[in-house]
Amino acid sequence: MNGAQALIRTLVGCGVDVCFSNPGTSEMHFVAALDDVPEMRAVLGLFEGVVTGAADGYGRMTGRPAATLLHLGPGLGNGIANLHNARRARTPVVNVVGDHATTHRKHDPPLASDIESLARPVSSWFRSSSSPESLATDAAEAVRGALGPPGGVATLVVPADVSWEAAGGPVSARPTATRRPVADDAVAEAAAALRAGDAVLLVGGGATSQAGLVAASRVARSTGARLLCETFPARLERGAGIPAVERLGYLAEFTIAQLQGARHLVLADATAPVSFFAYPGVPGYLVPDGCQVHTLATAGDDVVGALDALADELGAAPDAAASQEAGRPDRPTGALDAQSMAAAIGALLPEGAVVSDEGNTAGIFVPGATAGAPPHDWLCLTGGAIGQGLPVATGAALACPDRRVLSLEADGSAMYTLQALWTQAREGLDVTTVILNNGSYAILELELSRVGAQAAGPRARSMLDIGRPDLDFAALASGLGVPATRATTAEEFTEQLGRAFATPGPALVEAVLR
Amino acid sequence: MNGAQALIRTLVGCGVDVCFSNPGTSEMHFVAALDDVPEMRAVLGLFEGVVTGAADGYGRMTGRPAATLLHLGPGLGNGIANLHNARRARTPVVNVVGDHATTHRKHDPPLASDIESLARPVSSWFRSSSSPESLATDAAEAVRGALGPPGGVATLVVPADVSWEAAGGPVSARPTATRRPVADDAVAEAAAALRAGDAVLLVGGGATSQAGLVAASRVARSTGARLLCETFPARLERGAGIPAVERLGYLAEFTIAQLQGARHLVLADATAPVSFFAYPGVPGYLVPDGCQVHTLATAGDDVVGALDALADELGAAPDAAASQEAGRPDRPTGALDAQSMAAAIGALLPEGAVVSDEGNTAGIFVPGATAGAPPHDWLCLTGGAIGQGLPVATGAALACPDRRVLSLEADGSAMYTLQALWTQAREGLDVTTVILNNGSYAILELELSRVGAQAAGPRARSMLDIGRPDLDFAALASGLGVPATRATTAEEFTEQLGRAFATPGPALVEAVLR
Repeated sequence: MNGAQALIRTLVGCGVDVCFSNPGTSEMHFVAALDDVPEMRAVLGLFEGVVTGAADGYGRMTGRPAATLLHLGPGLGNGIANLHNARRARTPVVNVVGDHATTHRKHDPPLASDIESLARPVSSWFRSSSSPESLATDAAEAVRGALGPPGGVATLVVPADVSWEAAGGPVSARPTATRRPVADDAVAEAAAALRAGDAVLLVGGGATSQAGLVAASRVARSTGARLLCETFPARLERGAGIPAVERLGYLAEFTIAQLQGARHLVLADATAPVSFFAYPGVPGYLVPDGCQVHTLATAGDDVVGALDALADELGAAPDAAASQEAGRPDRPTGALDAQSMAAAIGALLPEGAVVSDEGNTAGIFVPGATAGAPPHDWLCLTGGAIGQGLPVATGAALACPDRRVLSLEADGSAMYTLQALWTQAREGLDVTTVILNNGSYAILELELSRVGAQAAGPRARSMLDIGRPDLDFAALASGLGVPATRATTAEEFTEQLGRAFATPGPALVEAVLR
Repeated sequence: MNGAQALIRTLVGCGVDVCFSNPGTSEMHFVAALDDVPEMRAVLGLFEGVVTGAADGYGRMTGRPAATLLHLGPGLGNGIANLHNARRARTPVVNVVGDHATTHRKHDPPLASDIESLARPVSSWFRSSSSPESLATDAAEAVRGALGPPGGVATLVVPADVSWEAAGGPVSARPTATRRPVADDAVAEAAAALRAGDAVLLVGGGATSQAGLVAASRVARSTGARLLCETFPARLERGAGIPAVERLGYLAEFTIAQLQGARHLVLADATAPVSFFAYPGVPGYLVPDGCQVHTLATAGDDVVGALDALADELGAAPDAAASQEAGRPDRPTGALDAQSMAAAIGALLPEGAVVSDEGNTAGIFVPGATAGAPPHDWLCLTGGAIGQGLPVATGAALACPDRRVLSLEADGSAMYTLQALWTQAREGLDVTTVILNNGSYAILELELSRVGAQAAGPRARSMLDIGRPDLDFAALASGLGVPATRATTAEEFTEQLGRAFATPGPALVEAVLR
């Protein structure tokens, strides 16, 4: 048994049985070993950003890490943006990066670079394996590092000779995601703050599951506290029957308004709100002056347990949680714009859907239109690095083969990791991609005015204009093996979306918005 | 005048007047300032790998840096692979990365990350600007850092508030690329080594220009030394009338054979040959045992001056250099394969063409078929990170608007940064892209056998197979605004290539190879 075989067997033994891969020469022994360990499912991506984003989507939906397989520093580089997103979402990922043979590094061959320096900013755990004997142990510890607490991206660098040389057997381990219990003191402090009035309970991280939201809703309703959720939750369970929660606004002004008058802010696996970006003359820290911040639970804590304990401490009845009423918008007619597009999604979203939301500005009405749809999951751009949506949809579909994935994607963001469509076609995944095509980086048009930049001239505007030439997403999808259609009216869009939802395998609908 | 305006004016004053951009919110003041400084040409890329690769291509062809404009750590991450290539090619690049406002970093907003840790591995110069007053000076020093000696990627991090706050005026400077003179001792040592016999003169870096090759050829012909060039030169001038030079092989076995019997190896801005990758039981350092290595010039040295001095020292006549004979293959007929495709390119390559070569395995016959074509430049994958070819072609075309660029691209590599086609369409660049479609990562099939991995099974093979589903490059190009055709015979390919060469603007020819 060589190192690569021991590595893969150890990963499988630790519950990591999917590997999103874009290998190169230094990873060829890993690739060769795939036939020895059929329990490991290897999924090829044409670009590393697809690989790392798919691992993020898989981890968000299963709570277990997928592995990646990346080629040296440049391959890792291509995957960094989506590893950044996974880090911010605290998704468990075992990020395997091949390296030159330990004996070869000293020659500084062309593809050599400082992998550790590249990996550290996105990794909560890092190790470069030094020998085939230690590789299996290193792999088991990487899985443990990914699961936490607090968990996140665990980067394991595997030099080529560590892969190809003879190793001992695999390590047998079955680490599970454990969460730290929250101290009674923290619960008592939160209870006192909430009883004091003018309080906000802010949930994030692990608290946006249905169980977390039920507990949080009990807390809110028994105290009159406002319940809010972080702006871009990693995974939000929502829909009919689940307590609805208002998300903090993306724009600082909105958040400031939402928190106005709060004298106590209780954080349940969330951080104190800060502005996504700084703007001239606008505060970056958005907690109102004089508002006290109380931390109930932080990353890696058993936040659901803490919220349950808090609800009980406050004497909330077990059935006190709010429950979102069922309801869908009518099928829209007429012009296709951000509102009618959202209504169509609200009318048709399948029960149990997983929504990978990178709709950005054009997607603004979709959460409202789907609030009363049957229960579903919502995956947001927690880390803010665009190019996440299509890969996360891919990984989520692999993780949940019996659920429909809706990939809601803005045109500009789609162009970062469009190669994900090819993996969806290759694996026959039930992903329906909706491209919101407005021909511009609309978010930047907003931001250009907001940063206080003087009235933008034509040269500045041209940097936000992606409609010259027009992107033809139907052609692009078809070039990647995914059937595609193009809708320019609400009726067309509704019909095409319904057909895509009902058809096994991936499809893309380009919504040309006016 | 704010920081962004001072920055752009300083760059323009320092001779940096093209900026490949993919901005975000933290770069909006830079974008807004573009209308104040019309001398700066901003070129939009849909993905950061396009931006950084285009800057590499521009710098290789002009010897002057272009600027980039990237958005925070994740944007830099997406550009790292091609910055790695630029670093290895020692291309001057001023790599501008926007950051959060200095006052905002402490809040750790979602998009914050350790930009310096990400940038250091690809940067020969790094600074994060700390105030609007220092930004202009920082920018001038970044240009100087990019130009060297030795020069390379100079990363300048610009926090948003440093951009938007009031600054002093721009700094007026006009740094030029200077090269360190080579000491007489080094020339004398090289002369003695070459006179001793069984010598190899290995040229690279700045020595692969026509002037460098003429001097090197004089040296070789006056001493009987073998003249070789590094495997993947950053820019090689070649064709009829220019001394031809044999490149070191990519495979270690080839290099070992090329260097066999050498007792002296003289390095002219090249490094001692090492294997691209390590293989079980194969040496990584490829200089024969007992061969003495002599360094005539290293990165940043005036290697052409040193070679001239060496030729004079050796008494070589001024006209002693070899000269490649003119000659082209006939137009091919019949099946379209790697050889007939190469012959068609050899038959048609325009005078003054710039070839961006990422043809990999399928392009193996093209250098031979174009050896006697009219003079042209050849840009190689010096750093080995695939996804370079289309962006470098884009930047080279911007740099040389009166020359035809041939972008020779393998199918697998094309899928990393295909978005470059859109920038070519947007800017109306004279780039002819040839996609060498063999439906696989053929280089990895070779490598899989070479690393000593046991006979690969179907699961391993599937990781190298990109023909399931087939990529339709004509559809993909058309979706990005570039007209495309598809050739399945030698006649079709020759006809389509000739038409693409003769038509202004970009076009893509997909060569379906059997």
